[in-house]
Amino acid sequence: MRRAMAEAEVGDDVYGEDPAVRALEERVAELMGHEAALFVPSGTMGNQIGMRLVCEPGQEVLCDADAHVVTYEMGAAAAVFGISTRTVVSDGGRLDADQLIAQVRPRDDWHLTATAAVAVENSHNRGGGLVQPLDQLQRLWNWSRDAGVAVHLDGARLFNASVASGVELATYGQLADTVSVCLSKGLGAPVGSVLVASAERIAAGRLWRKRLGGGMRQVGVLAAAGLHALDHHLARLADDHGHARLLAKRLGVDPATVETNMVVLDDVPAPLVAEAAKAQGVLVSQVSPRRIRLVTHLDVDRAGIDRAADVLSAVL
Amino acid sequence: MRRAMAEAEVGDDVYGEDPAVRALEERVAELMGHEAALFVPSGTMGNQIGMRLVCEPGQEVLCDADAHVVTYEMGAAAAVFGISTRTVVSDGGRLDADQLIAQVRPRDDWHLTATAAVAVENSHNRGGGLVQPLDQLQRLWNWSRDAGVAVHLDGARLFNASVASGVELATYGQLADTVSVCLSKGLGAPVGSVLVASAERIAAGRLWRKRLGGGMRQVGVLAAAGLHALDHHLARLADDHGHARLLAKRLGVDPATVETNMVVLDDVPAPLVAEAAKAQGVLVSQVSPRRIRLVTHLDVDRAGIDRAADVLSAVL
Amino acid sequence: MRRAMAEAEVGDDVYGEDPAVRALEERVAELMGHEAALFVPSGTMGNQIGMRLVCEPGQEVLCDADAHVVTYEMGAAAAVFGISTRTVVSDGGRLDADQLIAQVRPRDDWHLTATAAVAVENSHNRGGGLVQPLDQLQRLWNWSRDAGVAVHLDGARLFNASVASGVELATYGQLADTVSVCLSKGLGAPVGSVLVASAERIAAGRLWRKRLGGGMRQVGVLAAAGLHALDHHLARLADDHGHARLLAKRLGVDPATVETNMVVLDDVPAPLVAEAAKAQGVLVSQVSPRRIRLVTHLDVDRAGIDRAADVLSAVL
Amino acid sequence: MRRAMAEAEVGDDVYGEDPAVRALEERVAELMGHEAALFVPSGTMGNQIGMRLVCEPGQEVLCDADAHVVTYEMGAAAAVFGISTRTVVSDGGRLDADQLIAQVRPRDDWHLTATAAVAVENSHNRGGGLVQPLDQLQRLWNWSRDAGVAVHLDGARLFNASVASGVELATYGQLADTVSVCLSKGLGAPVGSVLVASAERIAAGRLWRKRLGGGMRQVGVLAAAGLHALDHHLARLADDHGHARLLAKRLGVDPATVETNMVVLDDVPAPLVAEAAKAQGVLVSQVSPRRIRLVTHLDVDRAGIDRAADVLSAVL
Repeated sequence: MRRAMAEAEVGDDVYGEDPAVRALEERVAELMGHEAALFVPSGTMGNQIGMRLVCEPGQEVLCDADAHVVTYEMGAAAAVFGISTRTVVSDGGRLDADQLIAQVRPRDDWHLTATAAVAVENSHNRGGGLVQPLDQLQRLWNWSRDAGVAVHLDGARLFNASVASGVELATYGQLADTVSVCLSKGLGAPVGSVLVASAERIAAGRLWRKRLGGGMRQVGVLAAAGLHALDHHLARLADDHGHARLLAKRLGVDPATVETNMVVLDDVPAPLVAEAAKAQGVLVSQVSPRRIRLVTHLDVDRAGIDRAADVLSAVL
Repeated sequence: MRRAMAEAEVGDDVYGEDPAVRALEERVAELMGHEAALFVPSGTMGNQIGMRLVCEPGQEVLCDADAHVVTYEMGAAAAVFGISTRTVVSDGGRLDADQLIAQVRPRDDWHLTATAAVAVENSHNRGGGLVQPLDQLQRLWNWSRDAGVAVHLDGARLFNASVASGVELATYGQLADTVSVCLSKGLGAPVGSVLVASAERIAAGRLWRKRLGGGMRQVGVLAAAGLHALDHHLARLADDHGHARLLAKRLGVDPATVETNMVVLDDVPAPLVAEAAKAQGVLVSQVSPRRIRLVTHLDVDRAGIDRAADVLSAVL
Repeated sequence: MRRAMAEAEVGDDVYGEDPAVRALEERVAELMGHEAALFVPSGTMGNQIGMRLVCEPGQEVLCDADAHVVTYEMGAAAAVFGISTRTVVSDGGRLDADQLIAQVRPRDDWHLTATAAVAVENSHNRGGGLVQPLDQLQRLWNWSRDAGVAVHLDGARLFNASVASGVELATYGQLADTVSVCLSKGLGAPVGSVLVASAERIAAGRLWRKRLGGGMRQVGVLAAAGLHALDHHLARLADDHGHARLLAKRLGVDPATVETNMVVLDDVPAPLVAEAAKAQGVLVSQVSPRRIRLVTHLDVDRAGIDRAADVLSAVL
Repeated sequence: MRRAMAEAEVGDDVYGEDPAVRALEERVAELMGHEAALFVPSGTMGNQIGMRLVCEPGQEVLCDADAHVVTYEMGAAAAVFGISTRTVVSDGGRLDADQLIAQVRPRDDWHLTATAAVAVENSHNRGGGLVQPLDQLQRLWNWSRDAGVAVHLDGARLFNASVASGVELATYGQLADTVSVCLSKGLGAPVGSVLVASAERIAAGRLWRKRLGGGMRQVGVLAAAGLHALDHHLARLADDHGHARLLAKRLGVDPATVETNMVVLDDVPAPLVAEAAKAQGVLVSQVSPRRIRLVTHLDVDRAGIDRAADVLSAVL
């Protein structure tokens, strides 16, 4: 990947003249079954611009209370775009379309904040990497067309969801108006996300990207990494999922809870576990004081999994 | 009240030169036990500026999912001020301080939206006019001082809460950093709310009022109505509360659910009931397709209550 | 006027049920030759919502550097709506259409802030009450239709401009997409402005008014004052203009510079003059350290003008 | 540089764990004489966050009408941060401190938008790369300390200014509260800018960077390019300046107008010239329909200059 980056032919992407970025955008748009795509520096920018393209200031996006877009993105929807967010409490992140639909508020009411869009996350980060049920995504999408409500898909980990479920990326893609996917995370590129949508929306998104300061010049060096990742790191996500199941089994976690590349350890003293594991070279995330998240990825091979299992078993 | 308005001595309130407005602001500040006050054209402006004074763009206000500030104010916090709102699902609007406290997010985290303030509503509109438990308000306030989190009180109906509970307005007032109270609603003035806070915050709020277009010129004609209402309509709120209990009894609603001037009819076909009642001169609010809200106020006397009970009994 | 206010029949204007407000809105819409109108609590709110209806966040409004909308409205366009403002330096406030047109920036450029609208002020406050040349307004309007750029008219003092120039209000009105006029100022109502535009824009503006906290309940008491002012105080603006010319003559100011109801005294020590005049009961505005503005209005009769002239002559 | 990027040791910069980014931030902070620095994906983000750190929503930044921050940054100050911008018309971009100072508006006025900061650009892009006079920068800075007004320096091309003038970077840096410098442009890194300020401001800026979607993960690959550029491409900017003067001479442009690495051709048919030059492999910028900008940089050597001069002479 570093070689691909070092050899990238670049141009000025603010003017749409960087060949690697254009190739990446075309590639991702096609994979997702959308007209157009936009390379952005982060998943946060992809999600936030994606939501802005389907929601006006003063309106609201409805989503799960554990969604990344309302939890880990620093209040950007409101702060940057004037968009309200409202949440429902889900069952561990799993989408229940009817639950969301029941909460939607009409447009043009004289008191209520109009619900312009619903945001869904797949796979779901705080849900321990769970894959959203396809029938619920379809139910939401079909309803949304009649209701005049848009759907944004936070697909930061959609590549994992697709590999785990066997559902095509484009199948997921076509159940949303805007989708943001990340090239870092499981795919292993150092930096970058891609937003896909209609050509008209992406044209508007390009202006917002510049306005937010996300327009980068010779950024093909990063796009080249993304292209390399799509070429070489996509199918192998299945290995990460196998590793996660193995790790779960070794740690006594129910493998049925492991749908992609995450293992969640609940009811553990997270800071103590994290510190002790780190001392032996195993890095884990503290989701809360009593919850640890383990993530498998391309830099952890089978031997690494064994070692992590040994260390964590001892620590626990 | 109309005579008081017609005789009001006025000045330019944008320059702070309207004597009726100044008198009203001083009166309400004193009643609430705060340093200063600001007359604003609506409860929405009072609440929103109040929250802005204790929450910066990019931070969040935490409140009940049924709170007026997130339900009926058109997404203003996000749209106008860049403030996120996040909610907990309460038991019918009743404040559970610990439930809110458990949801607070820290400042200066690199991913989470910092919780700068908590908003409480008393009495609670969608909660059917319920009065917040004083011990919960005190618990929240005491915690907030240590936590560095501010408290905003949506006191649109605080006069009702005070009369019903016997708790002094200033007692409530001193459990919040910013409080918005309404002179319309139960008090019967045609227009206007008052925001109270420290002198420094009110000075900043005055600039925001102008920026929002809420600075009005010879607005003493409205302030005079507010002063008249405080003189003559405050104690009599007890009558409205008695009327509401009577109405509840007549309609088979548990009077224990009637804490102030509202009666809630649940599991009724709201549009049909509203239309049929209106046809006979009884106006009711449709809170949802299956919920009706009845409000007693100074223009409905005992005979009116009897008549409303007769009409609604027949309709139901 | 106070009697009209005291006798006003009112309703809840947030629901569009206040008859006096509806009558006023229809009256002003018709006067201005537009489809619909919206009563707002201030000229600032009228202007800012007016500009928002024709300019999206991220775009810009272009105007004169001395325009009220960029000088006296606290940065609302940016702060509340995310709209940029850019200015040209005019000749004392007088509109030069070509000068503005030359500064317009295209839409959809990848770096430039797109110019969505131009704002014009008539009569011009900081321009000493000057009336904009009709041919320039027409030139701007005709150009704007081809260019896809909207025109907002800050008509806070448009009634004065119309009376002074003999140009119909509707003639001015039809040279703008959105117009805000004030019922206070020359017309003498205590509070209130009216925004006119197409029915579709006014429907959107009604939502923004609520969001800003400008939705007021039984506000017919103020609308009744506005109706009274339109009935009784419109034609008499000519008296104010005559008084202003008289005052100018008495003070040695060139009467040709007095187009409506303002007289500007330049190169005077403004604070000293203001204080000395005030001590003798004559109130003047300090526009800058070296500029005084004198305004004639319905509470200043001929004798008042004489007295003001005597006092100011002595002071100067 | 590509090798440095390919060999960069990286970490997660959102957690401040990327060693190359940390090294770059420390290096630039020290060069500029400030406490702390923040790597951002673009000059636009550096400038806009820099201005936000010294200006609150509702306040204004004052600058030259040709400044990059109000011309080429898509209205971000207003759209993203609620900050107004106001401009003075300068003499070709050259700073006249007193002209700016005369326009500053006070805080806490009840109508005026308060001027919180002044922005200066050095070297000045639309000014043809001119270097701001040091005495004017000092005059502005000294005044600003007493006035309580902040100074933001758009130093996108500050490296050019420093090399051309012989004034140390830290000397410029200490005449501003916040400074944004670009590693792309003259220095030749593919992507990236750095914002410097006090440690407290940079901590706040880090939150804003995340909120805008500018927090990137393993972004050391870009930071490594920036470090390489500082090591190897700084002193050689003098060559670009010599090339620009040479080009000017060859094209009959007064060399006195060439202060850094830009040559401006005025009163030429820009689209025609650009197209004809491009056909022969010489890329130029069209600043306006009648103005062409030529920029020398590290990819244009002496032979390239000769060739550009030949081509352009023929074209003109």
